[in-house]
Amino acid sequence: MLPDEVARQLKRNADGLIPAIVQENGTGEVLMLAWMNDEALHRTLTTGRATYWSRSRGEFWVKGETSGHHQHVRSVKVDCDGDTLLLTVDQTGAACHTGAHNCFFTELTK
Amino acid sequence: MLPDEVARQLKRNADGLIPAIVQENGTGEVLMLAWMNDEALHRTLTTGRATYWSRSRGEFWVKGETSGHHQHVRSVKVDCDGDTLLLTVDQTGAACHTGAHNCFFTELTK
Repeated sequence: MLPDEVARQLKRNADGLIPAIVQENGTGEVLMLAWMNDEALHRTLTTGRATYWSRSRGEFWVKGETSGHHQHVRSVKVDCDGDTLLLTVDQTGAACHTGAHNCFFTELTK
Repeated sequence: MLPDEVARQLKRNADGLIPAIVQENGTGEVLMLAWMNDEALHRTLTTGRATYWSRSRGEFWVKGETSGHHQHVRSVKVDCDGDTLLLTVDQTGAACHTGAHNCFFTELTK
């Protein structure tokens, strides 16, 4: 269970979730955004492997469990108002399910 | 109004909002996360100044309008499944309301 001193720093949405930005260690590349509940954060902090809550599947999701594209977590930070996390990770292979290294490959223009 | 070809790429939450990760041009520093509705994105794309929807105040929020800490937008990307934006910006001064350059200055530990 997530320790109280961590849990009380967090502001969750109506579904008990908080967005986690995932940034690659070294390159600084923003890889993806995923969602965590308290237990996913607890597992991430204690195992060192990025673990999210899949909103579409309604289950915990250890990144790389099926793809092999693990994220080894170097640090987890919470923002000034407690409603966003920033993970720094060592990414094995591609972060995106499309095979791209990160999920942000479509630029919008006016 | 946001052009149809942009609008149809986006998946909004129940409140019509989409999270926008803000990354600093050059340094790669993740500065903050804020939220946009379609009109905020439209204003961001057309003015080149980062404009968000303030969930707490329920109004549009041109970053820097009161603080002077503007964000000049270099690019806006949407992720592979259309539910997160990534802005690259030139940040004037501090991005965080605390005066810190970015909002992620609190590290969590197990």
